[in-house]
Amino acid sequence: METGAESEEATEEARAEQERARLVPVKLEPFNAETPLEALAQARTPTASFFVRSNHPEPELPADAHRIAVEGAVEVPLTLKPAELARGPLRELTVTLECAGNGRTSMAPLPEGEPWDKGALGTAVFKGVPLAEVLGRARLRPDVLEVLVEGADGEGSKRFARTLPMSKALHPDTLLALEMNGAPLSRAHGAPVRLIVPGWYGMASVKWVRRITVLTRPFRGHYQSERYIYDLGDGRAPEPVTRIRVKSLIIAPGEGARVAPGRVVVQGVAWSGERRVVQVEVAVDGGETWKPATLLEPPRPSAWVRWAFTWEDAQPGRHTLRARATDEAGETQPETVPWNRLGYGNNAVQVRLVDVG
Amino acid sequence: METGAESEEATEEARAEQERARLVPVKLEPFNAETPLEALAQARTPTASFFVRSNHPEPELPADAHRIAVEGAVEVPLTLKPAELARGPLRELTVTLECAGNGRTSMAPLPEGEPWDKGALGTAVFKGVPLAEVLGRARLRPDVLEVLVEGADGEGSKRFARTLPMSKALHPDTLLALEMNGAPLSRAHGAPVRLIVPGWYGMASVKWVRRITVLTRPFRGHYQSERYIYDLGDGRAPEPVTRIRVKSLIIAPGEGARVAPGRVVVQGVAWSGERRVVQVEVAVDGGETWKPATLLEPPRPSAWVRWAFTWEDAQPGRHTLRARATDEAGETQPETVPWNRLGYGNNAVQVRLVDVG
Repeated sequence: METGAESEEATEEARAEQERARLVPVKLEPFNAETPLEALAQARTPTASFFVRSNHPEPELPADAHRIAVEGAVEVPLTLKPAELARGPLRELTVTLECAGNGRTSMAPLPEGEPWDKGALGTAVFKGVPLAEVLGRARLRPDVLEVLVEGADGEGSKRFARTLPMSKALHPDTLLALEMNGAPLSRAHGAPVRLIVPGWYGMASVKWVRRITVLTRPFRGHYQSERYIYDLGDGRAPEPVTRIRVKSLIIAPGEGARVAPGRVVVQGVAWSGERRVVQVEVAVDGGETWKPATLLEPPRPSAWVRWAFTWEDAQPGRHTLRARATDEAGETQPETVPWNRLGYGNNAVQVRLVDVG
Repeated sequence: METGAESEEATEEARAEQERARLVPVKLEPFNAETPLEALAQARTPTASFFVRSNHPEPELPADAHRIAVEGAVEVPLTLKPAELARGPLRELTVTLECAGNGRTSMAPLPEGEPWDKGALGTAVFKGVPLAEVLGRARLRPDVLEVLVEGADGEGSKRFARTLPMSKALHPDTLLALEMNGAPLSRAHGAPVRLIVPGWYGMASVKWVRRITVLTRPFRGHYQSERYIYDLGDGRAPEPVTRIRVKSLIIAPGEGARVAPGRVVVQGVAWSGERRVVQVEVAVDGGETWKPATLLEPPRPSAWVRWAFTWEDAQPGRHTLRARATDEAGETQPETVPWNRLGYGNNAVQVRLVDVG
């Protein structure tokens, strides 16, 4: 006879199985997978199709037993239950998350690391309590420098842990999230509590949060000083990977798609961390003839904007399509990015081959 | 009632149609198409699957009426019928042809020009008379510099015409070919007579040859000085595109293929113009771990060599495969090539994504 707990576990396993079936697997253990291109066509990426990036096996943290310690350079150390966080004040934000290694397989020489193509990307609605709110309750000491957030994944020096500078930790959009797309976080996405750092590459959005430590000195953990750094391999000190670089993606027509001649609607998304995208341009075939696309919604910082472009009079044969985005700071997607040893931040313009006929 | 000529024409049209159906079209008019990847798995590329690159509409040249003029700095100008050439002495060679623009769509920024991916490549057996033999009959004057070969395609300044330096024109492997893979040349491949320049990119192998002029001064035609040049876009004088750079291609597993875990045999081809390939290495996943592949036949200059590599113990998930060739001159395929304005000579190492599971 099944006990209730066993049955619940079986249900959770079945749910995880089901979710994995909709993803494009990249690594099975720990599980890493991309969002399929067709799911990116939706304004919000369904949770079951949302890319998963985990550095370690997913920890299982029952929400009722889990506690989050808030400690370090604070006047009032706290121990928080997820249910306490759920009392708010809650904030809901639409956030585009992109893995820092997205597009790594287009870099040459090919760096080591998960072989991400284009789909380590998704946009979801996250709901949670601003980290600033929790830090306010704990009362920061005057000499604080950064905030360390630890996940429950990994062990010893490889435990997953990242810091944020105070300005980002105290930003009202930086959330301790409990919900994703209107439902409690799934295990793959960091249940019961995940940090959401809008505008920064995904590594900053620590999953399975178990400890928050306010620091007065810089943190030098593995995932901060040995990974998620731009190491140009030229002997210069690496820069940390932080905000998401301006980028765009053509969703339709898909890779190698066959479309009828005549009018073809090209659609995609564009995003830039912490900034609004202000322009997307499309080039049909090679060379430097760029034409403006139409933004389909008011651009917001830290979430993608959907765009469309009408390709008039597509002629039979193979053609190439490219898109490039520009953000409100005037930064435009480059044609190539400086190679870096760990393969991060590849926001170069992509080429899509399309067959007309 | 159909006349014999009309019926013959209809048959020729039907044959052309049939051939085009096996190719991957890139442009319909003039017709340009790639060899499908699966056809490249054969030691010799069947003519019906052999890539077609034409700068102009294909001229129709009935073999019995066609004449080739041999003139310029010669003692004995000639007018040759294809049937006279067929009397020999004939020479048969296996030659790898690659379009200079093959791989252009992997260059950034994307240059103008036909959007070739990986299949502007093929290997066939060509049979014909050495050009040196014909030049010998015409008797060269002492001050000759290069040999101009004109096709019957294109008009005025855009007629297709290319020169060879004397050393290459007189090389015994440079042929006026009449046959391809044991049959008379098809119209798409230059019937009735095509120049074959082993080891040089395809533009040198002028199709539909109608005139051969021995020159005492350098030729500056459109397809020699405005196209088929490495223009690095940095103000320096462009270099002409000549010999095929060392390169390799993974044939199997194909792009995005799904293979069973365990032992996976990786297969491909490697070639280098005018030189033997002496080594092919394969890297599984990113980083710099290269392992030697096995060459499956004795390497020859100007024809590809097939190779195989056994990937032991492939684990479930996505993986990347890369191959790189080295030739007898010690030249190894680079990870990136210097960008050039017209997008030629891209022999960079390619990344193949494979799903194991």
